[in-house]
Amino acid sequence: MSEPPYSSVFAQFVTATTGRNMTKAAYVAVVAGVVLMVLLSIDSAYSALYGWLDALLLACLVFFIFEWVVRLRQAVRTQRVAGYLLSIRGFVDGAGAIAIPLALLFGATPKTAWLLGVLWLLKVIPGIPGLRQLRRVLVQESGPLFSVLVIFLMVLFLASVVVYFLERDVQPGTFGSIPAALWWAVATLTTTGYGDVVPITPLGRIVAAFVMICGLGVFGLWTGILATGFAAETRRDNFLKTWESVSKVPFFAALGPAAIADVTHMLRTMDLPARTTIIRKGQAGDCMYFIADGEVEVDLPGKKVKLGDGAFFGEMALLGNNLRSANITTTQVSKLLVLDLVDFRVLMARHPDLSETIDAEAKRRELENK
Amino acid sequence: MSEPPYSSVFAQFVTATTGRNMTKAAYVAVVAGVVLMVLLSIDSAYSALYGWLDALLLACLVFFIFEWVVRLRQAVRTQRVAGYLLSIRGFVDGAGAIAIPLALLFGATPKTAWLLGVLWLLKVIPGIPGLRQLRRVLVQESGPLFSVLVIFLMVLFLASVVVYFLERDVQPGTFGSIPAALWWAVATLTTTGYGDVVPITPLGRIVAAFVMICGLGVFGLWTGILATGFAAETRRDNFLKTWESVSKVPFFAALGPAAIADVTHMLRTMDLPARTTIIRKGQAGDCMYFIADGEVEVDLPGKKVKLGDGAFFGEMALLGNNLRSANITTTQVSKLLVLDLVDFRVLMARHPDLSETIDAEAKRRELENK
Amino acid sequence: MSEPPYSSVFAQFVTATTGRNMTKAAYVAVVAGVVLMVLLSIDSAYSALYGWLDALLLACLVFFIFEWVVRLRQAVRTQRVAGYLLSIRGFVDGAGAIAIPLALLFGATPKTAWLLGVLWLLKVIPGIPGLRQLRRVLVQESGPLFSVLVIFLMVLFLASVVVYFLERDVQPGTFGSIPAALWWAVATLTTTGYGDVVPITPLGRIVAAFVMICGLGVFGLWTGILATGFAAETRRDNFLKTWESVSKVPFFAALGPAAIADVTHMLRTMDLPARTTIIRKGQAGDCMYFIADGEVEVDLPGKKVKLGDGAFFGEMALLGNNLRSANITTTQVSKLLVLDLVDFRVLMARHPDLSETIDAEAKRRELENK
Amino acid sequence: MSEPPYSSVFAQFVTATTGRNMTKAAYVAVVAGVVLMVLLSIDSAYSALYGWLDALLLACLVFFIFEWVVRLRQAVRTQRVAGYLLSIRGFVDGAGAIAIPLALLFGATPKTAWLLGVLWLLKVIPGIPGLRQLRRVLVQESGPLFSVLVIFLMVLFLASVVVYFLERDVQPGTFGSIPAALWWAVATLTTTGYGDVVPITPLGRIVAAFVMICGLGVFGLWTGILATGFAAETRRDNFLKTWESVSKVPFFAALGPAAIADVTHMLRTMDLPARTTIIRKGQAGDCMYFIADGEVEVDLPGKKVKLGDGAFFGEMALLGNNLRSANITTTQVSKLLVLDLVDFRVLMARHPDLSETIDAEAKRRELENK
Repeated sequence: MSEPPYSSVFAQFVTATTGRNMTKAAYVAVVAGVVLMVLLSIDSAYSALYGWLDALLLACLVFFIFEWVVRLRQAVRTQRVAGYLLSIRGFVDGAGAIAIPLALLFGATPKTAWLLGVLWLLKVIPGIPGLRQLRRVLVQESGPLFSVLVIFLMVLFLASVVVYFLERDVQPGTFGSIPAALWWAVATLTTTGYGDVVPITPLGRIVAAFVMICGLGVFGLWTGILATGFAAETRRDNFLKTWESVSKVPFFAALGPAAIADVTHMLRTMDLPARTTIIRKGQAGDCMYFIADGEVEVDLPGKKVKLGDGAFFGEMALLGNNLRSANITTTQVSKLLVLDLVDFRVLMARHPDLSETIDAEAKRRELENK
Repeated sequence: MSEPPYSSVFAQFVTATTGRNMTKAAYVAVVAGVVLMVLLSIDSAYSALYGWLDALLLACLVFFIFEWVVRLRQAVRTQRVAGYLLSIRGFVDGAGAIAIPLALLFGATPKTAWLLGVLWLLKVIPGIPGLRQLRRVLVQESGPLFSVLVIFLMVLFLASVVVYFLERDVQPGTFGSIPAALWWAVATLTTTGYGDVVPITPLGRIVAAFVMICGLGVFGLWTGILATGFAAETRRDNFLKTWESVSKVPFFAALGPAAIADVTHMLRTMDLPARTTIIRKGQAGDCMYFIADGEVEVDLPGKKVKLGDGAFFGEMALLGNNLRSANITTTQVSKLLVLDLVDFRVLMARHPDLSETIDAEAKRRELENK
Repeated sequence: MSEPPYSSVFAQFVTATTGRNMTKAAYVAVVAGVVLMVLLSIDSAYSALYGWLDALLLACLVFFIFEWVVRLRQAVRTQRVAGYLLSIRGFVDGAGAIAIPLALLFGATPKTAWLLGVLWLLKVIPGIPGLRQLRRVLVQESGPLFSVLVIFLMVLFLASVVVYFLERDVQPGTFGSIPAALWWAVATLTTTGYGDVVPITPLGRIVAAFVMICGLGVFGLWTGILATGFAAETRRDNFLKTWESVSKVPFFAALGPAAIADVTHMLRTMDLPARTTIIRKGQAGDCMYFIADGEVEVDLPGKKVKLGDGAFFGEMALLGNNLRSANITTTQVSKLLVLDLVDFRVLMARHPDLSETIDAEAKRRELENK
Repeated sequence: MSEPPYSSVFAQFVTATTGRNMTKAAYVAVVAGVVLMVLLSIDSAYSALYGWLDALLLACLVFFIFEWVVRLRQAVRTQRVAGYLLSIRGFVDGAGAIAIPLALLFGATPKTAWLLGVLWLLKVIPGIPGLRQLRRVLVQESGPLFSVLVIFLMVLFLASVVVYFLERDVQPGTFGSIPAALWWAVATLTTTGYGDVVPITPLGRIVAAFVMICGLGVFGLWTGILATGFAAETRRDNFLKTWESVSKVPFFAALGPAAIADVTHMLRTMDLPARTTIIRKGQAGDCMYFIADGEVEVDLPGKKVKLGDGAFFGEMALLGNNLRSANITTTQVSKLLVLDLVDFRVLMARHPDLSETIDAEAKRRELENK
C-alpha cells in the first residue's frame, strides 16, 4: 500500500512527469527529436552523422516510451486508465511512444518509420497558452465559420466545373479532369496562386478573376467572424482571471458588488515569479498595482519596505510627475492586479472615496521617503 | 377534396420532401451526384466504371426530377406555383431537374451534359445555417463594400493600362493587349500572383509593387467592413433568438422590462435533442442553465430528479468548487438558456435578490444530495 | 444679365451636367470609352472594327470636352473658376478632356494617346457612395497606418539586402542587384509570390520564410487598424444621417434630449424613391418604420390609407405574429427611419410610455382592419 | 565645469543631435545612404558613378560616426553611458557607425561592407509615430499571438513530413528532404505560393489544399487578435493624450470628475504649429474646437479677434447652417481639443447647462459679427 521505493532522481522524474505541465526535459526531447528527424531526411547529413542520428533518435524514442509507461502506471494507480488513454494527452503520449515501433513492425524502412517522430510535436499542444481561448472562439463561432466553409466549397466546385469545361480542350494536360480543375481552384480561391495550372482562354480567365475576388471575400468574412469572436473571448478570459483576486483586495471590498463587477473589467492579472523587478526607478509609469497574493519589496534610500497581500503601489507616478520613484521587486511568487492609467482615472472619478484613500496613502509615503 | 391515397412509404417521402428542410436522402443524393460527376471527368475512372457511373448518375437525376415534381404538385395544391418557381429553392430545384435533359436535347454530349450536375450543389444553399446572418451583413454593409469594389476596379484598370504601356514592347506575347494586362493586374491585386505574366521593366515592377500594396489595403478595408458588420449582426441574432425564451422563465420575470433587455444580451439559446448529456460529473463548469422549454434529468446517487420548464441547474459549480456534481441529461427536445460564468457574476452583483434565490436553491440542493 | 437662350434639350443637358451628380449619359460615356479603349488594344478587334472604334472613341472624347467646357463656363459665371479647377472634380474633368489632345500634340501615336482614355474612369470618383467615409477612416488612422508602412518598408529593405548578399553569387541573373532583390521582397512580403525570382540557398529560404510570416503580420496589423477605424466611422455616419430626422418625428419628441441621443444610435435612415414597396403582405417582419419626410399608402382590403410625416407603421408584425398584414408603398420620395426588432424591444423596455402609445395604435389599427 | 566653447554652428548641431528627435540632416543622410547603397549594387550605375558613389557613402558614414561620438560624449557627461549603449537608440547608432569599418577590418570587400549601410534604416525606428502603440498591442496580445504561431509551426511541420513522404519518390529533386518540404509548406501556408515546388500526387495535393485553407484560418486568427488589441489600444491612447488638456479647459471644469472621464473619451487632441489655418470660411463644419493651450486668430470682416487658452470656437457651424463663417488660424504652437459633431450632440443632450453656455456664446458672436 505504501509508495514503492524509487531512487531519488528517478522519483523526481516520475513526479515531474506525472505533473500537470510538460517537463523541461520533454520539451528538449521534442525539439531534439524533430530536428534529428529533419536531419535524417537530408542525405548528406545522414551519411555524415549516420551513427549519431540513429542513436539520438532512439534515445528520444526511449524517453517518450518511458514517459508514457510512467504516466500509464500512474493512471493505473489512480484508476483513470480509460480517462487517460482517451484524453488528448494520453492519445498523444501513446502515439509518440508506439507509432514508430509499430511502423517498423509492419515492415516500414527505418528512414520512413522515423518520420513518425513528427508526432512528438503534438505533445506540445496541452502546453500552449491561450489554446483553450482559441478553441472557445472556434466553438462559439462554429456556425458562421461552417457557413463560410460551405460557401467556399460551393464556389470551389462551381468554378472548377466551369473552368474545366472551358479549358479542357485547350489544355488537356493540366485541366484534363475535374480533380485537376479543383486543384487549380483551391490554389486560386485561397489566393495562393502557384501558377502551375493557369487558365488561358479569355472566358476561363474571367471566371478565374471572379474566383480570386471571391477569395478575398471569403478571407474577409472568415477574419471578420474570428475577430468578433476573439474580442468577446478576450474580455471574458480577463474577467474570469481577475474576479477571484479582486474580492481578496480589501481596497475594493468597500465597493458594492455591482461596482466590483465594473472594476474587474478594468483590472488585469499578472503572475510573477520571485525576485522579479516590477518597477524600475526613473522609468515612466502608466499603471498601478494591487497585491492579490504574495509580497513585494520597495527599495527606498536607506531602508527596504515590504508590502503584502492587499497592499497597493505604483500610484505615485500616476498622481505626480509620471516617473517611478523606487525599485520594486517581488520576494516570492506573487499575483498582482494591474490598473492602467486610463482606468485609474475613470475609477478615481467615479469613486471619490477610493481616490481619497489613494491620495492619503501617496502623501504619507512621500513624507516618509523624505 | 380528400388527400389522394398514397402507399405509406411513398407518402412519408412526399411529406419529408415538402417539409422545410432538405431530406437526408437529398443530401446523400447531392453528395453522390457530385462525386460521380467528378469521377466521370477522370478518363481512367470512367473507363473502369463505365456502366455504373452512368446508371448511378441517372438515378440521382431521377431522384431530383421526382423531388421537383412532388414539390411542384404540392405548390399547385396550395396555389403557390409562382411563389415556388420564383423562390431560390424553386429555381434551384428546377435547374437541378431540367438542366441536364435540356442540355442533352440541345445536342450536348452526355459527358458534357452531366457536368451540369454541379448545379445540384446549390440545393444545399437554403439549408446552410447562418447564411441569413451572412446575407444581412452583406446587405447592411453593401454601401462601403461597393465603394471598395469600385476602388478595386479603378486601381485594376489604371494599373493595367500603365503596365500595358510599359511592357507591351518588351513582352508583346504576355502584355500584348489591355485584357492581357488586366489578367495580370487581377492576379496581382488579389495577391494571388500566378507568375505566368510578370512585368520585367523597372518601371513596370514599381507599378506592380504599388498594385500589390494596394491589394493589401483593399483586403484590409474589405475585412474591416465585414468584421464591423459581423459584430453587430452576431449581437442582434443572439438577442432575437433569446428574447422569446427569457420572458418564459419565471426566474427573470421578477426583473423589470429594462433589466430583461440587459439579461437577454447575456444569455445564449441552446437547442438540444432528447437524451443529450449537458453536464458530466467531475468536469469543470463555467456556465449555468435555465430551461426555457423541455425537461432534464439529474442523475443523483440513488435517485433521479427531473427538472421542467423554468427550472435552472448548473449553478452549484459556479458557486462552489467549480466541478460538476452530477450528470444531467435531456429527456426530450429542449431549449436551454446558457448563462456564462462572467455574466453570472455581473448579474448576481447587479441583482442581489436573484443572487439570494440562487444561493438558497443551491444550498437546498446540497443538503438534499447529502 | 439674363440667362442666354438655349434650345430646350441643350438647356436640359447643361442643367444636368452642372448639377451635383454625374449624369447618366456621362456614366454611359465612361463605360463605353473604357471598353472601346480596351478593344483598341486588341489587334484582332482593332482590325475588325477599325473605323467604328476610332469614331466612337472620338465621340466620347467630344462629349467629355463639351462637358468640361459647360462646367468651366458655369464656373466662370459663378466666379468660382479657381475653385473648380483645383477641385478633384475640375482636375478630373480637365484631365479627361485635354490629356488625349495634348498627347497627340506632343507626337504620341493615336493608339498610345487613346490609352489616356483610362483617365475617364476617374470621373466616377466623386459619385462613389461611402467614399467620404472611407477617406475619413484613412485620415483618422493615418498615424498607425503610416507606422505599419514604415515597418513594411524597413522589413523590405533589410530582407532585400540580406537575400541579395546570400543569393547574388548563386543566382547572379535574378538576384544580381538590390533592386532585383527588392522586387523579390515586395512580391514575398505582400504574399503575392509570383515565383519568377525565388531564393534557392538554405539561408536565403529561411530569410524568405521569415519575410512571408512578417507579411502575414503586416497584413493583420493593417486590417486590424482599418477594422477599428471603420467601426467607429460607421457609428458616426449613421448618427449624423439620423439625428436631423429623429427630432422631426413627434413620437420621439416626448423623450428628453439625452434619450433622443440614445434613440438616434438605434435608428437607421432610408431614402426611398416614389412608388417603392416597403412592406409586402405575408412576409416576415423584423423592423418598424417612422416617416421622417414623405408619405406612404397602406393597401388595406377595401380601402387605401395614407400616412404622412411623423406617422409610424410596421409595428404590428413586431407585436403580433411576425407577418406583415398589408402592402405598404411610398407615394412620393420619402425618408424613413428604421427601428430594428432588437432595438424596438430595448426601446419599449426602457420607455414604457412609448410602448403604450405603440400598443394602443396597433390595437386601434387591428380593430379598424377587421 | 563650464560648457566647452564650441563654434556656433557646431554647437547648434550638437544640441540638435542630442535632442529627443532625429535631426532633419540625419533623415536626409539615412535616405541618401540607403539609395546610394542600392545604386552601388547595380553594376551599370556603379561603373558610371564610381567615384561619386563611394565618396558620398563615405560622407554618410562619417556623419553617422560623428553623430554617434557626439551622443556618446553627451552620455558620458550625463553619466548615462551604459543606459545609452543598451538602449535601442544607442545600439542602432553604434551599429550604424562601426558595422562597416568592422566589416572592412575583417576582410570584407568594400562592395559587401557597404551593404551594412542598410542598418542606417534602423535609426528611423525611434521616430516612427505610433510605434509605441503597436508595440503595446503586440505585448498585450502576445499570449494568443504566440499560440497561433505554435499552431502555425505545428501545421507546417506535420504537413511537410506528410507531403515529403508522399512526394519524395515522384519528385526527388524538389521534395528530396524535409527542409525542402518545409520550404514548400511555408510558401503555401502563408498563401504566398511561389510555384517553384508544387505537389503533383493526388494525395499530396489534397494535403496542400488543406494547408492552404489552414493558411486562411491562421491569417484570420492573427488579424482577429490584432484587431481586438488595436481597438482597445486606440481608445486608451486617445484618452491619455486628452485627459491632461480637458481639465485645463474651464468650460469642462463645471462637470464633475465622472462626467469629465466621459467627455475625455469624446475629445481628440490636435497639436498644431503656428500659422496653421484650422477653419476655412465657407467649408462644411463637422466639429468644434477648445483651446487647451495656445492662441488662434479669427479673421472677421473688418477686424481680427484673438482667442486664448480655454476658449472655444467652431460651434456656430454645428448649431446653424453647417458652413464655417470665418477663417481661423493659429498664431503660435497650439494644442486644441476637437469635439466631433456626433459627440457634440450627445454632450449637449446630456448636459443642458453646457448647451446653454455654448448657445449664448454663439448668439453673442453672431450679433457681434453683424
